[in-house]
Amino acid sequence: MTYKFSKRVPQGDTDAVGDILKVAGDPKVMSFAGGLPAPELFPVAKVKQAADKVLDEKGPAALQYGSSQGVPELRDVILKRLEVEGIHTDTDHIMVATGSQQSIDLTGKMFIDEGDAVIVEDPTYLTAIDVFRSYGAKFVGVDMDEDGMRMDSLEQALKDNPNAKLIYTVPTFQNPTGRTMTLERRKKLVELADKYDVMVLEDNPYGAIRWEGENLPSLKSMDTTNHVIYMGTMSKIFSPGLRLGWVVADPKLIKKYTMMKQSADLHTDSLAQYVCAEYFKENDINDHIKAITALYHKREQLMVKAIDKYFPKGVKHSNPEGGMFLWVMVPGVEDSQKLFDAALKRNVAIVPGDPFFGNATIPGTFRMNYSNTPEDKIEDGVKRLAEAIEEVMSVSATK
Amino acid sequence: MTYKFSKRVPQGDTDAVGDILKVAGDPKVMSFAGGLPAPELFPVAKVKQAADKVLDEKGPAALQYGSSQGVPELRDVILKRLEVEGIHTDTDHIMVATGSQQSIDLTGKMFIDEGDAVIVEDPTYLTAIDVFRSYGAKFVGVDMDEDGMRMDSLEQALKDNPNAKLIYTVPTFQNPTGRTMTLERRKKLVELADKYDVMVLEDNPYGAIRWEGENLPSLKSMDTTNHVIYMGTMSKIFSPGLRLGWVVADPKLIKKYTMMKQSADLHTDSLAQYVCAEYFKENDINDHIKAITALYHKREQLMVKAIDKYFPKGVKHSNPEGGMFLWVMVPGVEDSQKLFDAALKRNVAIVPGDPFFGNATIPGTFRMNYSNTPEDKIEDGVKRLAEAIEEVMSVSATK
Repeated sequence: MTYKFSKRVPQGDTDAVGDILKVAGDPKVMSFAGGLPAPELFPVAKVKQAADKVLDEKGPAALQYGSSQGVPELRDVILKRLEVEGIHTDTDHIMVATGSQQSIDLTGKMFIDEGDAVIVEDPTYLTAIDVFRSYGAKFVGVDMDEDGMRMDSLEQALKDNPNAKLIYTVPTFQNPTGRTMTLERRKKLVELADKYDVMVLEDNPYGAIRWEGENLPSLKSMDTTNHVIYMGTMSKIFSPGLRLGWVVADPKLIKKYTMMKQSADLHTDSLAQYVCAEYFKENDINDHIKAITALYHKREQLMVKAIDKYFPKGVKHSNPEGGMFLWVMVPGVEDSQKLFDAALKRNVAIVPGDPFFGNATIPGTFRMNYSNTPEDKIEDGVKRLAEAIEEVMSVSATK
Repeated sequence: MTYKFSKRVPQGDTDAVGDILKVAGDPKVMSFAGGLPAPELFPVAKVKQAADKVLDEKGPAALQYGSSQGVPELRDVILKRLEVEGIHTDTDHIMVATGSQQSIDLTGKMFIDEGDAVIVEDPTYLTAIDVFRSYGAKFVGVDMDEDGMRMDSLEQALKDNPNAKLIYTVPTFQNPTGRTMTLERRKKLVELADKYDVMVLEDNPYGAIRWEGENLPSLKSMDTTNHVIYMGTMSKIFSPGLRLGWVVADPKLIKKYTMMKQSADLHTDSLAQYVCAEYFKENDINDHIKAITALYHKREQLMVKAIDKYFPKGVKHSNPEGGMFLWVMVPGVEDSQKLFDAALKRNVAIVPGDPFFGNATIPGTFRMNYSNTPEDKIEDGVKRLAEAIEEVMSVSATK
């Protein structure tokens, strides 16, 4: 049977990233490919306590249909988290989403018509590309350096694309690069969004996990013209399995988001929302974030140390001050997939750079994750990866 | 600030149904408007047991990212439920969704391009209309009678609309009418879908809750050409708050659904999936369904008895053999909203018929829900509703 799909469905049955994650899941493969939090830090016992209390005290409400905008108790928790980001608002400005991914999806659905331009960092979060593309977006990639998106390139992109509907950015510990946008550039970005009247989708899943440098204010905290839509998530500071994210925008826009969310899945899991709110009531999330930050920092240090020891000369990498990823650039390699293949031959997995780009890719790049690898395995994995890089570089050099 | 939304976003800020449900939520209003299960039957204590066991035995997995297609343990549970519907398949044919609403949303996204026709029962589930419309669907309504969708009208609709992409149907205890499609018509529908090469989305949230008549096989169980996509949900037999639904289709199609789901919300809540699977392992769902069915039957009988006692002559209603809704048709009334207004004056809420129609409405109609009203309040509510109907009918008659 040949199905007559809409234009939104990608043609072909290939799911490059899915295939990568599948091989990376093989137990004999050391995977730096995924983007999973360290499961040993999940507060399982405390979640159990919270779940018991919720089911004892408001069981029927936790199992019943709920509000599309989200459980009030959880929106109160989110409100307090936003203070940390310098966002002082109220719960009318907040909608709970089924994970950040849904916030991206609803934003794409609400703003992008066929052919509209979406401006993204080059590279950017790969599943955001999939979503925006499914709504007919054309991508305009903006160059980055170690200080995040370059504002001269952004302004040029805005001039060249008057039909741009959205700037999508992960300003802090970006996925896939781990880079953080400077304060100066943040100010400039908000200014440009206003000047060119373009919406900004600010995605901040990793911001709380910082071990170096100073906390920088969110774009949303500088936004006086309602051009910034802010997204947060419980995935990296609490649990990704519960699928809890949020959108922050002015109430008029939140009303539209809520209508679109109602169409998408009616509302987010009631039990998960109550359990999360209860967990936050009984525990200090900052203690938990400290533990996560300390562990990821330790792993990042081990990874960077091993990289600097084993990777061939000329290979560059980002130096994240927090978050979960770092980005590697191998000179002289035209096909990033070759790096993946050579690494996999040695039972190490990374994500080659190509799927992180909306258009033209930067060859010889890949993403490494350190949050999910036990400390005693990092050096060995990096060493084998170094051999793989060496092999690909030497083949490229003799061509 | 004026937002430049995509064409998918409904214009205006009115959310007619949202507004109805808001007034219906006023504690002094007796609401027959919603579609909520009876919360007093939720198996709260057993869910707590299941949650404890899941968190004790596989806490980290339950809090971690999971598979977009769904937790294998839950797909096994769904597989067994499908046997009841006469669908004998395997877990490759199943994807877990974040509630039925997501199954509808993904189907709309995957199949409907701007201007494509979607064939629906007249009337049909109102939020399905919102979803399909958001993807640019034009609706073709098919007449119903007490035996469900009329097959002569359906064939005419298929002849008249060669660009029809989808037939959306709730064959059993339909929302909003409570009507059930006969076996003969089911066979015919599957035959027509094949003949005209149109996909069918079979939505079966209520089928398990039957107190009268014989179980009828699902359309999917008769489908030999992969034209039927089947949707089920835990919302009416277990808990709507956990947002657990499923799609059944051939594996090639499930692969596409899974890719689209990954864009929509990565995956469904891991904890909810494990807890539901554990609940099914330790409890006999059929006992639970029996308790639900007995209670809803009692409430439906009380409602029908009161309707027959109090409603003015000439008012017709459906006679559901299961499910949660019945449908009322008031002769001589042109504006269904007047029925809602007159009822609300007497502190009773119903859902007027209009939002259940893709195009032209049948005036003087409304939906009543009985699953969520305590037995001792039904007669009084119906009596007051009868007075409202009488008032509207007499005003209409004197015009």
